Amino acid sequence: MTTSTPQSAALRPEPAAEADAAPDTGYVHGYSPTEARRLGEQADTLAALLHAGTAYPAGSRVLEAGCGVGAQTVHLLTANPGVLLTAADVSADSLARARDRVAEQLPGADVRWHHGDLHRLPFPDGSFDHLFVCFVLEHLADPVAALAALRRLLRPGGTVTVIEGDHGSAFFHPRGEAAQRVVDQLVRLQADGGGDALIGRRLYPLLTGAGFRDVVVGPRTVYADGARPTLVEGFTRRTFVAMVEAVRAEAVAAGLTTAEAFDRGLTELRRAAEPGGTFHYTFFKAVAVNP
Amino acid sequence: MTTSTPQSAALRPEPAAEADAAPDTGYVHGYSPTEARRLGEQADTLAALLHAGTAYPAGSRVLEAGCGVGAQTVHLLTANPGVLLTAADVSADSLARARDRVAEQLPGADVRWHHGDLHRLPFPDGSFDHLFVCFVLEHLADPVAALAALRRLLRPGGTVTVIEGDHGSAFFHPRGEAAQRVVDQLVRLQADGGGDALIGRRLYPLLTGAGFRDVVVGPRTVYADGARPTLVEGFTRRTFVAMVEAVRAEAVAAGLTTAEAFDRGLTELRRAAEPGGTFHYTFFKAVAVNP
Repeated sequence: MTTSTPQSAALRPEPAAEADAAPDTGYVHGYSPTEARRLGEQADTLAALLHAGTAYPAGSRVLEAGCGVGAQTVHLLTANPGVLLTAADVSADSLARARDRVAEQLPGADVRWHHGDLHRLPFPDGSFDHLFVCFVLEHLADPVAALAALRRLLRPGGTVTVIEGDHGSAFFHPRGEAAQRVVDQLVRLQADGGGDALIGRRLYPLLTGAGFRDVVVGPRTVYADGARPTLVEGFTRRTFVAMVEAVRAEAVAAGLTTAEAFDRGLTELRRAAEPGGTFHYTFFKAVAVNP
Repeated sequence: MTTSTPQSAALRPEPAAEADAAPDTGYVHGYSPTEARRLGEQADTLAALLHAGTAYPAGSRVLEAGCGVGAQTVHLLTANPGVLLTAADVSADSLARARDRVAEQLPGADVRWHHGDLHRLPFPDGSFDHLFVCFVLEHLADPVAALAALRRLLRPGGTVTVIEGDHGSAFFHPRGEAAQRVVDQLVRLQADGGGDALIGRRLYPLLTGAGFRDVVVGPRTVYADGARPTLVEGFTRRTFVAMVEAVRAEAVAAGLTTAEAFDRGLTELRRAAEPGGTFHYTFFKAVAVNP
């Protein structure tokens, strides 16, 4: 779940790069300081919800595939001291930001940074005990192929953890057709870019299809109302509404809406963060084993 | 969350009765043995999810408002031995079934049964320590008025527990437009009948609006995939798909669809219960205090 910049390529972050070190042009999330900060805030708000249950023993060889700007990396490191972490991303720019973030928040943390496409990472078979893949598959044209490529890197008996959202789980009070339309437009833009913002519901068949076994998927549901002002601010307003808002220009440029109609939708959607409003969203977290 | 019989009044179970003992004609859920059994199975499947956290001390005076055929009543009694339970329903027929169910499953259980409209139950102010209201508000034209009327029966400091579904939370893999349409038609029929199948998201403002305080609402999410065959059978197939299927004739009679289109939607929806399919639904459970 990331916000795109208002460019047509924004929602297609994993180009079919020919080389291991893929060009940055396809992955345009999180390059502005504002966007990087927003992703960090989102990760902080959701850390307890999403990272609960992920515990790697010290000394484990862990690969975070698609670490982006490191928003989840700091939580992985904090929750799992002593792991031998490799963090890979297709974007050198994101990777640099991730390195800065970790250096700032966890000085002394030892991370091996790798710039490359997760479809063809140059590590030997079975190099890792655990894989962590968070908010990555949603952007890929062929997530089964990506998971299969990553599975090669996992030792037999090693685990993969996958976390994704599903924008079809977003519903809110008060309801509004204009608000629903802007959410649908975000989904449509991501689909047009080759991704799937409704991927959470597919984790079970995707992991099974990629050859993993013992696939266990669980919902991680966020619900925010007036009794939870921190979540209203941190999730409804600064995560979800902000993500929708960020595709405004792109949605207009794609001819999906007008600026006026999009703004009406945003205004309606923001009511979910006002007194009496409520907001619901479900993430899915999957753990599976490499046979 | 109940299934309606295929009649136009099916989704308007709480008529504006003039007398305390309301006529049965408006509450047509759960009168067939098949339907009563289905509601019982649904309740059994969901009991752990929905009843977790509801613990009343022995001796507590508890009112279950809208007990229907007693599907939840047996779980309330099992989880809370020693409570002084009053179970009320607007339908004498449902009440008789509830009495039979409790007598069969919990012989010796002491329940005070009351036939009457929950808007005007004839108990003195402050008669109860706790109220339990499950799958009832979704059928009411004015749920705030109902909650306010029930609040009168609660002693100061007493609690109300409300559980409702929200069909807007239903999403599934594989996706299908025909499947989504039949779900939407179920929502539409319930709305046409004066109810709201999307009420879960509204519990916070409804309870606040009825004068309760310390309102805490939490999602209780059901997610079923191939790793959980019991839930696929008990929830996806026998609860949700069965509920949609039960409005087939009504949807056709209302002119919302044709039998053929409805059946296509059902066929698509059933794929969520087949290998590789997944299904998601969120219930909302609220607890609030009478000031």
